[in-house]
Amino acid sequence: MGLPQGYTFRKLQVSDYSNNYIETLKVLTTVGEVSQARFEELFAHWDSLPQLYQPHVITNEQGVVVATGMLLVEKKMIHECGLVGHIEDIAIATSEQGKKLGYTMITNLTQIAEAAGCYKVILDCSTHNIGFYEKCGYTNGGTQMVKRA
Amino acid sequence: MGLPQGYTFRKLQVSDYSNNYIETLKVLTTVGEVSQARFEELFAHWDSLPQLYQPHVITNEQGVVVATGMLLVEKKMIHECGLVGHIEDIAIATSEQGKKLGYTMITNLTQIAEAAGCYKVILDCSTHNIGFYEKCGYTNGGTQMVKRA
Repeated sequence: MGLPQGYTFRKLQVSDYSNNYIETLKVLTTVGEVSQARFEELFAHWDSLPQLYQPHVITNEQGVVVATGMLLVEKKMIHECGLVGHIEDIAIATSEQGKKLGYTMITNLTQIAEAAGCYKVILDCSTHNIGFYEKCGYTNGGTQMVKRA
Repeated sequence: MGLPQGYTFRKLQVSDYSNNYIETLKVLTTVGEVSQARFEELFAHWDSLPQLYQPHVITNEQGVVVATGMLLVEKKMIHECGLVGHIEDIAIATSEQGKKLGYTMITNLTQIAEAAGCYKVILDCSTHNIGFYEKCGYTNGGTQMVKRA
């Protein structure tokens, strides 16, 4: 979907711990100390629930992770036991911005969610990113409210 | 937490299929045809992942479901493998509105999420509900974007 030559969109692999996955996430927010053991524990948890947690990455021509994105598929009672896709934790390595990796990540995760039968896909963003998500086919759906512990 | 006499906040039970659970959800949105077998299948799925899916209800003095709310607890890599609570599918029976059941549902689900270690709890709402969620301790965290299939 328009990725630069040699770039690949794929599922997260356990070997990505030492392949720039954590460093890429740090572009988004605080990650803190995540040891290889903790990474592997969480990876195994996600991997045990493959329909629910669908973590993806984009790698560059060296095979290094340069973008991250999670698709979380929630099973609801409403809409005849419908599925809703939640897109979470999109991060693009600073040195790789301007290559439309974010667009590819969002549109690919959206296609996966729709192919899985999700009746809608949702995500939360800052006001200054609304235009970007509109280009990805999204519309304003309301307000995110948050309470921090 | 200020519920009327005889009202109870508790986890969803499988017997709630025939106890006004589906009817209460219909106040929120389209539910469609959900047979008892499909309800029980989804209930069993939620019940198999008790840390992740935490569906709750409020019952009135007759023991009938009059409010619903889901707490979904996501395990993330960011924030040192932190937990985020998602509050979903809040519905209050039309005949029971004005009794602060929504406030009790939201604050109780939030407390459960925080007790489970969530570093934040998030939900999406319409603009006209922002004031209500502010009374529940929430602040505006951004914009929800949506793509419907």
